[in-house]
Amino acid sequence: MKLKVIWPGRTRNSEIRGIEEYYLKKINQLAKCLIIRSKEAKGIDERFAARIKEIEAIELEKHLKDDYIICLFDKGKEMTSLEFARFLEKVALNSGRVVTFVVGGFLGLDERILKRADFILSLSRMTFSHELSRVILLEQVYRSLAIIKGRQYAK
Amino acid sequence: MKLKVIWPGRTRNSEIRGIEEYYLKKINQLAKCLIIRSKEAKGIDERFAARIKEIEAIELEKHLKDDYIICLFDKGKEMTSLEFARFLEKVALNSGRVVTFVVGGFLGLDERILKRADFILSLSRMTFSHELSRVILLEQVYRSLAIIKGRQYAK
Repeated sequence: MKLKVIWPGRTRNSEIRGIEEYYLKKINQLAKCLIIRSKEAKGIDERFAARIKEIEAIELEKHLKDDYIICLFDKGKEMTSLEFARFLEKVALNSGRVVTFVVGGFLGLDERILKRADFILSLSRMTFSHELSRVILLEQVYRSLAIIKGRQYAK
Repeated sequence: MKLKVIWPGRTRNSEIRGIEEYYLKKINQLAKCLIIRSKEAKGIDERFAARIKEIEAIELEKHLKDDYIICLFDKGKEMTSLEFARFLEKVALNSGRVVTFVVGGFLGLDERILKRADFILSLSRMTFSHELSRVILLEQVYRSLAIIKGRQYAK
């Protein structure tokens, strides 16, 4: 199983960045996974949110290729961790494609990225900060791999 | 609004501990909030899970007093962040009691603590590690306070 996780820019909170690295290492013991930090839209006033999202979408798109794309989005489909593990296993086996997760930046994902998604996933009914969402996703990916490989992992 | 968050023991992952402190500081700018790390059950083999949970329950109970108790539990009620904020506001106003969140340890919460809960909350259909759940909860508490106080906060 080949995995990719893409989001715009570098995580600013250094502790959250540390946890990203922690889970990435754990994931890489079980599957090949790459984090790609695509180019951010810089120097544009936040009032021009649509423009920022569009620029970041163009940058994200450069890395999507022919992958099976899973976008993270509040209004996506919720799953239990077990359902998520089974889903991931099936997708990777059946599609034979790289499974790529896309997480939005501060303003979320542009419509054009959501339209390209093969699947839209929601981590919770709650809204988490985009930086926290990244580590939650990585923890769930690790948990899924542990479930798939029959490893024991924390509840 | 007076808040308390209780869980057994100190968070082992130092980066997660760092994020706990980060959100606690942010929360304390908007409301009084205390984190209590109750005594852990130590030196007992994991095979005796029921005994560990019971000991930790007794230690947790010492801090519950007459508070309005919200337990975190996978099978609890899910809410959006906005619903959670409105709920928290209402509970704090109507009950006039300290609102206390209880998060389980590695093995989760004992039945006797769940029975004492005024409300059982689920952060997601997914299962998060108990240490990660702590920071997710703190982020949601901060987000709620920001919503209640009309502050702007990240999506």
